[in-house]
Amino acid sequence: MLDLRPVGYVIGLLLGALGLAMLGPLVADLAAGNGHWPAFAESAVITILCGALIALASSNGVGQGLTIRQSFLLTSGTWIILPLFGALPFMLGRPDLPLVDAFFESVSGVTTTGTTVLTGLDTLPAGILLWRGILQWLGGLGIIIVALLFLPVMRVGGMQFFQAEGFDTQGKILPRALDISWALLNVYLMLTGAIFAAYWVLGMTAFEAAVHAFTTVATGGFSTTDASFAAWPGPEQYVATIGMILSSLPFVRLMQLTAGQPMPLVRDSQVRAYILWIAIAAALVIGYRALVLGELSEDTFRNSLFNVVSIMSGTGFGDGDISAWGAFPLVVFFCVGAIGGCTSSTGCSIKVFRYQILFRAIAAQIKRLHSSHRVVSIRYEGRTVGEGVLDSVILLFTLFILSLGLLTVALSLTGLSYLSAITGAWTAIFNIGPAFGAEVDATGAIPDFPETAKWLMSAGMIAGRLEIIAVIVLFLPRFWRG
Amino acid sequence: MLDLRPVGYVIGLLLGALGLAMLGPLVADLAAGNGHWPAFAESAVITILCGALIALASSNGVGQGLTIRQSFLLTSGTWIILPLFGALPFMLGRPDLPLVDAFFESVSGVTTTGTTVLTGLDTLPAGILLWRGILQWLGGLGIIIVALLFLPVMRVGGMQFFQAEGFDTQGKILPRALDISWALLNVYLMLTGAIFAAYWVLGMTAFEAAVHAFTTVATGGFSTTDASFAAWPGPEQYVATIGMILSSLPFVRLMQLTAGQPMPLVRDSQVRAYILWIAIAAALVIGYRALVLGELSEDTFRNSLFNVVSIMSGTGFGDGDISAWGAFPLVVFFCVGAIGGCTSSTGCSIKVFRYQILFRAIAAQIKRLHSSHRVVSIRYEGRTVGEGVLDSVILLFTLFILSLGLLTVALSLTGLSYLSAITGAWTAIFNIGPAFGAEVDATGAIPDFPETAKWLMSAGMIAGRLEIIAVIVLFLPRFWRG
Ligand SMILES: [K+]
Ligand SMILES: [K+]
Repeated sequence: MLDLRPVGYVIGLLLGALGLAMLGPLVADLAAGNGHWPAFAESAVITILCGALIALASSNGVGQGLTIRQSFLLTSGTWIILPLFGALPFMLGRPDLPLVDAFFESVSGVTTTGTTVLTGLDTLPAGILLWRGILQWLGGLGIIIVALLFLPVMRVGGMQFFQAEGFDTQGKILPRALDISWALLNVYLMLTGAIFAAYWVLGMTAFEAAVHAFTTVATGGFSTTDASFAAWPGPEQYVATIGMILSSLPFVRLMQLTAGQPMPLVRDSQVRAYILWIAIAAALVIGYRALVLGELSEDTFRNSLFNVVSIMSGTGFGDGDISAWGAFPLVVFFCVGAIGGCTSSTGCSIKVFRYQILFRAIAAQIKRLHSSHRVVSIRYEGRTVGEGVLDSVILLFTLFILSLGLLTVALSLTGLSYLSAITGAWTAIFNIGPAFGAEVDATGAIPDFPETAKWLMSAGMIAGRLEIIAVIVLFLPRFWRG
Repeated sequence: MLDLRPVGYVIGLLLGALGLAMLGPLVADLAAGNGHWPAFAESAVITILCGALIALASSNGVGQGLTIRQSFLLTSGTWIILPLFGALPFMLGRPDLPLVDAFFESVSGVTTTGTTVLTGLDTLPAGILLWRGILQWLGGLGIIIVALLFLPVMRVGGMQFFQAEGFDTQGKILPRALDISWALLNVYLMLTGAIFAAYWVLGMTAFEAAVHAFTTVATGGFSTTDASFAAWPGPEQYVATIGMILSSLPFVRLMQLTAGQPMPLVRDSQVRAYILWIAIAAALVIGYRALVLGELSEDTFRNSLFNVVSIMSGTGFGDGDISAWGAFPLVVFFCVGAIGGCTSSTGCSIKVFRYQILFRAIAAQIKRLHSSHRVVSIRYEGRTVGEGVLDSVILLFTLFILSLGLLTVALSLTGLSYLSAITGAWTAIFNIGPAFGAEVDATGAIPDFPETAKWLMSAGMIAGRLEIIAVIVLFLPRFWRG
């Protein structure tokens, strides 16, 4: 039998932390004097209480670290249970909001997707806006910890390739987990602070700067205004662009950078490919707008680069209606969204590393076609890529594509038009944020999507964020038996 | 150096046969007395002359069979050179037609894609209509020979799995090629004859029955009328449905069937999966139309099944505007088009066999995730699937998806709307036939696509028909050096 207690203990502690985080919006609403603070007080009490009970009930099974199966359960369990409690402030603070909308908004926060069902953001109480930012910030921190500590041990998506890098966890998670998480939190806080300071200096209010700093570093994309970054069509967008790029680089490299070692970052082949691909995609969009649409100004340049980085990093901040630029830019955006950022960052989607491995595998296979040699070895960053890594990467690609297809089919069944269905599936599975189509509001919000579509997209966001495999494994009878 | 002579010799002979085939439309135009026969006479003379010259020039290098590299070159060369000559009757017979349109129509014929740039089919001379049917019929016959003899030796897309089945070619092609091709031609002729007879008995004219029998057995989809099968909304559609299914079954099994062995066909796991998947897709479409659109009659049933089989087999006959049924049926059609028929049939796309292998590989990989066993063997039809087969299948999937993405990007760059770009790429790469979108005529023809889009789609049709790898290999410098 699977011992659930270590899993329950950690989830209990995380719920406690989530409850404490609700005190931030509570203070914000008190300060604003809008009378919304009781919703957060109530939510905090419920969440902390439940967390404490779960942790206490499980505490007698703790101390020997986590097995691989427990790691799978903890990862998926966290991203299912925390959004349930994260939805409480939405439910209690806005009793008119349907249950599905509260849950969707919370999942969209914790998974750092950033798709919203709320309209009229500018008129919402400060607490709700801050809470959305905090959910993304916590979700971003969480996913880096999962990518650094859990995915390698769970052998998900070829992440075992990065296992030896810096942290040897010897097959069991937790012993060194706290040290690593602490160092990571340090970098994450520094980056958030730097982005906050830059936004603030450039003229955002402290509140706007804080929320946008939270959602930039998490590549989440929630904003305080319906206009998103169209409200700041100037230097703020350059800051956001740099912030989004930094947040979608491997955090191991950022940790080395803050320790005074810039070279690992500069030499990292994934980082180089990522920057190169951003440049190519931006050049394609800018070139198209200049040559075909006849638009060429600082605005064209800034706004194209900003949107490319926003989609490729999976942030989803918006500036203008990019679907109005024509079919070619839309297809470019679709493609970069299916690539995503670097591994062990807050960035989402399939990730640059896996495309590099895939391309090398294809090249090796084609070479093999008309030669009699059968042994082909793929190298990455000077090391041989083992067969297990390659198999995992290809499995992950397949599952992402199948999930995308399946969710598109399911969404179209709910009655959505095909463009809404395709981009809805894309934005959910790859945790990007914006969707396009007839049922999408002018603000980019999707309150009018059918209820079933919102549940399906919530499931898609969780599956996509956890790289699908971590979720699928839980549905195998073998998992629970063995 | 690569000896081009055996390749040239075969292509020369094939050109000769193509030229002889032009006598059919010549006779048809003479009989109709429409005065169009000189175009075919001229084309036939040019084609036969060129074929004879090429064959003669290469004849001193013949006799020792083909190496693997020569097989690659012959396969790709045939599908590039034959359409050039196949376009002659269009160019000479309709001097107003742009060059790109003549070439596109010919490629669409030889690759059995069936997308057309011609409108007003009902007013075209009989010779042109017959020539389109003959091009598809020859193209269908050709692709089965390639699938039976060449792809296994070339190790393309896992076809080496079928190599031992019936024909051992011992690594060199040609020795037994003629016997096999002869037996195959026999079955192909019988099937064509049966379908022709059924169409004729049901009320088509002998001419209509002949052209539609040609394009049914080739899963090509060219018709003699703009209305396609909407002109025969009755039992003819059931005949076409059965004909399209038979033509997308493995021809090895049909050859065994005509030799009095029905069991291999009945027991074939690919055939069973294909029939099952057709049934599921048809049930989804019929269910959706019944429950959501409130349509349920014999017409709904027949017409849904007909269109599902038409798309999945890659034929592309039409009956009504299926894109008007809503997003869900459109997504189902998109998916079944990306599956396709069975291996070594005239059917196109990725093929059922490869999905079966892929699904088994995924299941094996997921099983492996939380167990310590590392050895996973995949079985198919009672035999172990070797690693080379699995690698080839996965390479083929990847290349199909990348090509689809690349062609979509390129088509959207020509200014097509996104739906036209996506379905245009889909219909070309998977050799299906219909496209949907703003730039597509009400008849389904695409004369208004930009010239560049037509060239790109022509390349896509050839690459897709030859399973992409056979074409890509020719672009490797290694291929020409080695
Ligand atoms: K996002
Ligand atoms: K076709």
